Amino acid sequence: MTDSPTTGPRKDGRTADQLRRVTIERGWSDQAEGSALVSFGKTKVLCTASFTNGVPRWKSGSGKGWVTAEYSMLPRATNSRTDRESVKGRIGGRTHEISRLIGRSLRAVVDMKALGENTIVIDCDVLQADGGTRTAAITGAYVAMVDAIEWARQKKFIGQKSQPLIDSVSAVSVGIIDGTPMLDLAYVEDVRAETDMNVVVTGRGLFVEVQGTAEGAPFDRTELNALLDLALHGTAELATLQTAVLTDDAGETA
Amino acid sequence: MTDSPTTGPRKDGRTADQLRRVTIERGWSDQAEGSALVSFGKTKVLCTASFTNGVPRWKSGSGKGWVTAEYSMLPRATNSRTDRESVKGRIGGRTHEISRLIGRSLRAVVDMKALGENTIVIDCDVLQADGGTRTAAITGAYVAMVDAIEWARQKKFIGQKSQPLIDSVSAVSVGIIDGTPMLDLAYVEDVRAETDMNVVVTGRGLFVEVQGTAEGAPFDRTELNALLDLALHGTAELATLQTAVLTDDAGETA
Amino acid sequence: MTDSPTTGPRKDGRTADQLRRVTIERGWSDQAEGSALVSFGKTKVLCTASFTNGVPRWKSGSGKGWVTAEYSMLPRATNSRTDRESVKGRIGGRTHEISRLIGRSLRAVVDMKALGENTIVIDCDVLQADGGTRTAAITGAYVAMVDAIEWARQKKFIGQKSQPLIDSVSAVSVGIIDGTPMLDLAYVEDVRAETDMNVVVTGRGLFVEVQGTAEGAPFDRTELNALLDLALHGTAELATLQTAVLTDDAGETA
Amino acid sequence: MTDSPTTGPRKDGRTADQLRRVTIERGWSDQAEGSALVSFGKTKVLCTASFTNGVPRWKSGSGKGWVTAEYSMLPRATNSRTDRESVKGRIGGRTHEISRLIGRSLRAVVDMKALGENTIVIDCDVLQADGGTRTAAITGAYVAMVDAIEWARQKKFIGQKSQPLIDSVSAVSVGIIDGTPMLDLAYVEDVRAETDMNVVVTGRGLFVEVQGTAEGAPFDRTELNALLDLALHGTAELATLQTAVLTDDAGETA
Amino acid sequence: MTDSPTTGPRKDGRTADQLRRVTIERGWSDQAEGSALVSFGKTKVLCTASFTNGVPRWKSGSGKGWVTAEYSMLPRATNSRTDRESVKGRIGGRTHEISRLIGRSLRAVVDMKALGENTIVIDCDVLQADGGTRTAAITGAYVAMVDAIEWARQKKFIGQKSQPLIDSVSAVSVGIIDGTPMLDLAYVEDVRAETDMNVVVTGRGLFVEVQGTAEGAPFDRTELNALLDLALHGTAELATLQTAVLTDDAGETA
Amino acid sequence: MTDSPTTGPRKDGRTADQLRRVTIERGWSDQAEGSALVSFGKTKVLCTASFTNGVPRWKSGSGKGWVTAEYSMLPRATNSRTDRESVKGRIGGRTHEISRLIGRSLRAVVDMKALGENTIVIDCDVLQADGGTRTAAITGAYVAMVDAIEWARQKKFIGQKSQPLIDSVSAVSVGIIDGTPMLDLAYVEDVRAETDMNVVVTGRGLFVEVQGTAEGAPFDRTELNALLDLALHGTAELATLQTAVLTDDAGETA
Repeated sequence: MTDSPTTGPRKDGRTADQLRRVTIERGWSDQAEGSALVSFGKTKVLCTASFTNGVPRWKSGSGKGWVTAEYSMLPRATNSRTDRESVKGRIGGRTHEISRLIGRSLRAVVDMKALGENTIVIDCDVLQADGGTRTAAITGAYVAMVDAIEWARQKKFIGQKSQPLIDSVSAVSVGIIDGTPMLDLAYVEDVRAETDMNVVVTGRGLFVEVQGTAEGAPFDRTELNALLDLALHGTAELATLQTAVLTDDAGETA
Repeated sequence: MTDSPTTGPRKDGRTADQLRRVTIERGWSDQAEGSALVSFGKTKVLCTASFTNGVPRWKSGSGKGWVTAEYSMLPRATNSRTDRESVKGRIGGRTHEISRLIGRSLRAVVDMKALGENTIVIDCDVLQADGGTRTAAITGAYVAMVDAIEWARQKKFIGQKSQPLIDSVSAVSVGIIDGTPMLDLAYVEDVRAETDMNVVVTGRGLFVEVQGTAEGAPFDRTELNALLDLALHGTAELATLQTAVLTDDAGETA
Repeated sequence: MTDSPTTGPRKDGRTADQLRRVTIERGWSDQAEGSALVSFGKTKVLCTASFTNGVPRWKSGSGKGWVTAEYSMLPRATNSRTDRESVKGRIGGRTHEISRLIGRSLRAVVDMKALGENTIVIDCDVLQADGGTRTAAITGAYVAMVDAIEWARQKKFIGQKSQPLIDSVSAVSVGIIDGTPMLDLAYVEDVRAETDMNVVVTGRGLFVEVQGTAEGAPFDRTELNALLDLALHGTAELATLQTAVLTDDAGETA
Repeated sequence: MTDSPTTGPRKDGRTADQLRRVTIERGWSDQAEGSALVSFGKTKVLCTASFTNGVPRWKSGSGKGWVTAEYSMLPRATNSRTDRESVKGRIGGRTHEISRLIGRSLRAVVDMKALGENTIVIDCDVLQADGGTRTAAITGAYVAMVDAIEWARQKKFIGQKSQPLIDSVSAVSVGIIDGTPMLDLAYVEDVRAETDMNVVVTGRGLFVEVQGTAEGAPFDRTELNALLDLALHGTAELATLQTAVLTDDAGETA
Repeated sequence: MTDSPTTGPRKDGRTADQLRRVTIERGWSDQAEGSALVSFGKTKVLCTASFTNGVPRWKSGSGKGWVTAEYSMLPRATNSRTDRESVKGRIGGRTHEISRLIGRSLRAVVDMKALGENTIVIDCDVLQADGGTRTAAITGAYVAMVDAIEWARQKKFIGQKSQPLIDSVSAVSVGIIDGTPMLDLAYVEDVRAETDMNVVVTGRGLFVEVQGTAEGAPFDRTELNALLDLALHGTAELATLQTAVLTDDAGETA
Repeated sequence: MTDSPTTGPRKDGRTADQLRRVTIERGWSDQAEGSALVSFGKTKVLCTASFTNGVPRWKSGSGKGWVTAEYSMLPRATNSRTDRESVKGRIGGRTHEISRLIGRSLRAVVDMKALGENTIVIDCDVLQADGGTRTAAITGAYVAMVDAIEWARQKKFIGQKSQPLIDSVSAVSVGIIDGTPMLDLAYVEDVRAETDMNVVVTGRGLFVEVQGTAEGAPFDRTELNALLDLALHGTAELATLQTAVLTDDAGETA
């Protein structure tokens, strides 16, 4: 859990460079090899990691593993109900885009050779949405994936000396609101942001993804730099939380 | 919460006529007009009720409301991962069947005239599955629906004197295992059952749905009667729990 | 053919416990291994049974066979035209539900070991609909399946000593209209029924499926029992007709 | 019914210029405004015509009507079962092509102004297939359409003095087999044909559609002419049959 | 390139029996084994031929090859934009029909035995449409296919002595406008045509496909003959152009 | 056209900070309100802009316009053929993602109020692909959009004094290959890049989108800055080309 006093200038009392209260409930599921229920404020995402032997056909025989992800939102995760993609019969562009982002982010910290010909499928289902669902998903998915890898090691599907994890990974959104760069936007902030950026960073502080979009007005180099500074600050805090959660068997954060 | 000692003859220590531990966490969602996270043992279903003004075109002008439901299962709710229906691009027969069952069950206790031209959409998403997901869904959905109706009354979308609720409704599965009729089957029991029956009963003890299926061997009238007895016993207990939950603002069960 | 005087209290002159005129035209198709054109009054369903060697992948190597069914309705089987599911690009919930019901009903009377690794696909296409299409389909499908099994025996796809048929199976709808339990509802009766039940029964009088639904008002135990009595009476008559049709090579009923 | 001695050189005893036995059972359906069960030998197609007031949006306000058609084949109409297009979730090219052909053929003999802003939907469902299903469908569909128009006239949806029918229409297949042009190919002939042609002709002997395809070897002008001669001969016979059926209320052909 | 003076009676100055300016830009694509950008006046179609070893499963082991085609139109090829079929999630009947026509036309001039177990997929994408897109596609696709076969011969996927090409093939549309038969209809002519015919002819002058449709009024034998005369005249000219293009490595037409 | 000597260290002779030869053939289509055939080396994208009065329902009455885009690739644009999304029946994630990117990029330079309640749909169809298709598409789409707006102004669908264009926009890809940041990656470079970034920049040099992805290894701040420098350099050159093309009616670049 990250700290969240409520005396700053933002609607929820945060300062510009402050995360919402973040919790990661590790091992939420009795069924999955790894799982985490992550919340960034009111945003709640259930992340499960499913480990299976073998890889998709196009990787078969390569000696390398595969990590992929699927993101979805419950119909009433949001303030007004949205139709299910299963009912519409097709997956929307936004869902596709986020699923691909999560998959790439996790693959960036996995040594596929060390994983061997095994597949990890990450499912990130948004139970409640209040902005930042994709960044919460990445942050929680990493914890679920670590546990699935550990499970596989104990089952001897991965050699005892293999270490598929190269680094940790977390993500946060940043944006410019009324000219001020801010960290970890809640939904009411997100809709007002002129520029919105999702940044995925490893535990060592390297960038995996930088996705900045001018929703309102194009941004200049100075603004870009301010946003990157904030994002590095936020992901450093998230990395610390991930480490704490993963070393505490109780799965409780503080 | 219902009581669950562990000294009976069943794998989990229950007696033949005993429910699993049942909890209903009312108001789980910050977004929906009504919601409940229901668990029957390890089976966990998130039920939300979305209230909107207006009805589908084919009911428009009738002066009557509409209640419908959609059921779905997270891909890793089960022991091995199943593909998402949104990814497959089509909804399976089982999903359709259960969604329709939940919708009919709830409509049976709603006076559509008193509801007025308003629609309640119930979403039941199985977060974790261990048998009895459809009966848990109905039981939790009723609680979510009650709160959505109460919300609408406070918003004056429903008249102060209108009472759309005719009765309460809950459901339970029963089955015959090795010749013995048993209440509320967990997954390991369900797969071994010769006959499997889902029974939906109102608070007054009337049947809304009786769906008995001979999975293994056809059943006779005596067995059918024994199963119905068990189901009425179980749903009476569930009705009591629903009442308790709905009169306790904290939303905690005991 | 069953008898149908027209002096009873129902719209079409039947008494409450009387079937409509039922005919089963065995061997209607020149193409299928087994077939039957069944009519319950104006309801007409063409049932074909396709026998093929081999089973779906998930049953392969089990030494057991498989029976499955698909139900569909021609667009103008009904009083007003409905769009084709092939045109809509998706199968509706009702179609799925009935297809599954027919499949389960037939499997209940087949010894899959005796069938060997062979598959029977039953197609039930409603050419004209006037209520009770799913129960007519089950009743006709049994006849088609018997002939397909006999065909396979003659082709030596099934051993001469194997008997995959454990029992016969037929089905009928029952319902409560204006408080009176009635057998084999025609469409005009079906839409007025408070409670509607489809019951699938074997030749020996055992239940395979009991699917009761309170369309209007929930029902009590007494009503349930009255409906089951009627259903057992009706299916006994249908079983007699099936036997007659199957022992009469001309395929004509009387 | 057309005559069919069995002494000619073809497998079924026909001469090269002879139709199979053709029957048109007018008014087969109790539900549709017009209907006909047509057979060309073992090929059986159920044609229904659904009349509705109003036209598709793109014709609205034009003062003109619309006629359209949908063709489909039951899964076991053929010698081996084919998957349903509703199950596959998409309509195949062949189905589309034939549906469009039937629609165009019928529209060619309808005065859309005289039809007024009304729509006729023709459904042609092949119950059993033995070659020539599309030509049988057109031939039967015309009879169903005539009855639907008559029904509409009696209901006063069409003015008493309006005559939407300009001409009659029927169709037949012709082909070259082992160098010999032949009329009305059965399935076993169709698969052997070098060239296959479907010809749609009005009662006055004018062409509506000429669709010739070199399945095996391209054809020359002489062969084309021989095929057209045969087709005109066959459709003249079919036109006579249609007239007979439509003037005989009993709906029986001879 | 075919010549196109502008002094005839048609809108664009052509005489009734004159083609539009036709060009075939051979080898337009750097990626495909064979390709041609064909134009008939403003109609422009990009044809590519993809050669791959192996055949679809149902042809495997036959020793024979396969040729198939897919036709599609860019959304703004036409005067007003049409929705993409990929966005609608289904392929329309017209697209299916034309794809099948192109495939059959090309297969008619290929000796599948000489092709061996190899597959050629022809893609015809209409970049700009002004009538006659399917006939332009066939005419250009032949050139692309020839180059793909030549490529395969050089790569030794086809034996040096094998000659899969039996003949050449081209196509043209003809129609009757205000009673006058005309060759190669532009879009403004096509919409006014009473009868529209697409004719596919080999280099030797044999018919592969004759598809005549009475859009307005049925046509008689004399009109049919006049249209066929025009079509043979037009395709002879196209065959000459194809030969010229294929013997001129520069791929420029004149 | 941009200059492209071939003496640099890259495979095609470029220096690290050099664009491929870029051409924009303005007004390629006779049908669309605006169009451009853009090439970046062998990558060729046909961009059309369709202008229509009115906006989607959710924008109706807002007084504001809408700009949206669809991206697609011909099946044989690439070295090996890919299946059509229309045939697969679903649009892939990559297509969705790029379509959304193009739409956002163009909207960033349009004043929706000045556009009024009009819609511009941009179609970007990749005719040939050799890396950088999305950035070529954005660069060409801007030119097509400018012409569509000009067309609308002349047709008086947009007021003479309204100026919907706020700025111009172009895009380029940059990446790190063997540790060296490089501009405008061709396909062979793209597959080897450790980090791949697409940058969308306005004519004034402001960022619209920054999408950096660590395909191989995460990147640090210094590398990020080097890539942004290159991208600004490349887009400045593209902006100059766009201006030249748009002021030269001949539509030829140099």
